[in-house]
Amino acid sequence: MGYARGVEALIERLTHRDERALARAISLVESGSERGEALLRDVRPRTGRARILGITGAPGSGKSTLTDRLIEAARARGQRVGVVAVDPTSPFSGGAILGDRIRMTRWHDDPEVFIRSMATRGHLGGLAAATLQVLAVLDAAGFDTLLVETVGVGQSEVDIVGVADTTVLVLTPNAGDAVQTFKAGIMEIADIFCINKFDLPGGDRLRREIQAALSLGAFPEGSWMPPVLETVAAKGEGVEAVLEQAEAHRAYLGGAGRLDELRRRRVRFEILAIVGEQLRRALSSREDEAVDAVLAGRTTPREVVRELLADAPHAQATSE
Amino acid sequence: MGYARGVEALIERLTHRDERALARAISLVESGSERGEALLRDVRPRTGRARILGITGAPGSGKSTLTDRLIEAARARGQRVGVVAVDPTSPFSGGAILGDRIRMTRWHDDPEVFIRSMATRGHLGGLAAATLQVLAVLDAAGFDTLLVETVGVGQSEVDIVGVADTTVLVLTPNAGDAVQTFKAGIMEIADIFCINKFDLPGGDRLRREIQAALSLGAFPEGSWMPPVLETVAAKGEGVEAVLEQAEAHRAYLGGAGRLDELRRRRVRFEILAIVGEQLRRALSSREDEAVDAVLAGRTTPREVVRELLADAPHAQATSE
Repeated sequence: MGYARGVEALIERLTHRDERALARAISLVESGSERGEALLRDVRPRTGRARILGITGAPGSGKSTLTDRLIEAARARGQRVGVVAVDPTSPFSGGAILGDRIRMTRWHDDPEVFIRSMATRGHLGGLAAATLQVLAVLDAAGFDTLLVETVGVGQSEVDIVGVADTTVLVLTPNAGDAVQTFKAGIMEIADIFCINKFDLPGGDRLRREIQAALSLGAFPEGSWMPPVLETVAAKGEGVEAVLEQAEAHRAYLGGAGRLDELRRRRVRFEILAIVGEQLRRALSSREDEAVDAVLAGRTTPREVVRELLADAPHAQATSE
Repeated sequence: MGYARGVEALIERLTHRDERALARAISLVESGSERGEALLRDVRPRTGRARILGITGAPGSGKSTLTDRLIEAARARGQRVGVVAVDPTSPFSGGAILGDRIRMTRWHDDPEVFIRSMATRGHLGGLAAATLQVLAVLDAAGFDTLLVETVGVGQSEVDIVGVADTTVLVLTPNAGDAVQTFKAGIMEIADIFCINKFDLPGGDRLRREIQAALSLGAFPEGSWMPPVLETVAAKGEGVEAVLEQAEAHRAYLGGAGRLDELRRRRVRFEILAIVGEQLRRALSSREDEAVDAVLAGRTTPREVVRELLADAPHAQATSE
């Protein structure tokens, strides 16, 4: 462990708000190197202070604009804000995203705002694990609020439920409810509903529909009842209320003693994401062959799994 | 392989429509024993003839009633019909299911109909793998049509997309679209939309909404355009059309050379389901300890995975 001191010094600088140390730490973590692993190990006990807010919704719902406004609102409260924008390669991520990201560059000169875009490629344990690792580094670096923005398509690689303390689902009145709920599939897990672009027609109807659906849910006494908020993020309208409700939700979680559980859930989620990625990789290299053998009656899926587990790449860290 | 002859004889009887052999074969497979494994190995090359139809939808949509009527329609065409009703333990599976299942007992005396209810408990490789294994046995036993009925909640253990040749999504006009699409999350993957209970108000509106959503999808020239059908399954109305469209969809798959691909996909799906189950089990026994160690900075998720893969139970078949 000749690099142990280097990692320690880096963490020390990280916790003293050294911007370059932060960039260096995240690069190390993303490299999947042994130093990155050492850093992640030492960083973890320093996590658990940041509030992690997930922002999800269909493309075009205005997630990035809302995220931008939430940065603004949190900065106005004096908070340090980290943003992880997850951008899985997907037929749904259209050109609008680039424009939204460009808009966010207005925070480039604010040292209290750190924004990271994550793409699918080049992550050893897959995108979900990499996202959690970057969040852990930002948490340890003392950011107060972490915003995780993901596209809320069902098959998305990043299941925001496993990541955030509070999940904000962004919907829009204009899209036609059938269309947008098609792509959501995750409405059941929203802690906060946010009807964005509420200045368009149909907002009241969508609010009634969401409330009707919520009224059918079984919310035990004292549990969190998801509020349905109205925003026009492009004009900054209603954004304060989103932040307030997010804080109310966090207070609820803290009161119910659930924050530690959520922190633990993130670690479990990271473990499972890495396992899944490793096995997908192990299987993909011999998939056709295995399927052929099963269909020809030479083996069974269970025997294939037995061999797969015996030979799985043992999640080797690369040496830098 | 002292039991090889026994298994061979059983398969021989199976393919000659021996009802008791079928029940015995399915018990063997479900036992996870070595004989069950041997049977599965030998059965697989005999699969690929049956058409596999998935029936999914929210609780209360009338899936079981539709399934019952589809059995009737397929029997009227002289087909042998196997049914696998998957019943994951879920807060959503209410009392109605029991009643529906009882209704299906009217097929009890028809030797050309075989119905199996699968529950979550007691399957070595999890429910999804067990379902696929039972389907393989029924396919090899010469059933023409296999109906797989599952509750279409997003988090359902059985993702019917990985199982069926043709997926029928059952919706109802009365539930309020927001409510039902909440729970579906799988509307994107329907090959056939079936608006059941079409005699209730709101059916036309739901049809228009589905069609509007479909019109936004990108269907390449020559690809399958999901039809939107109307049924009143309780009265048998419209059920013939569902079967006809299912056969049209199968003809489309055959014409596009995709049936073999689907058969291969089922094997892949079974492998992944077994892997997932094995690892969930391996992780669950040491999960708390692993999470503690990560949060205390003693290890990292990647190291946990490395150990997990090294020690994973090697999908051992039990000896009978």
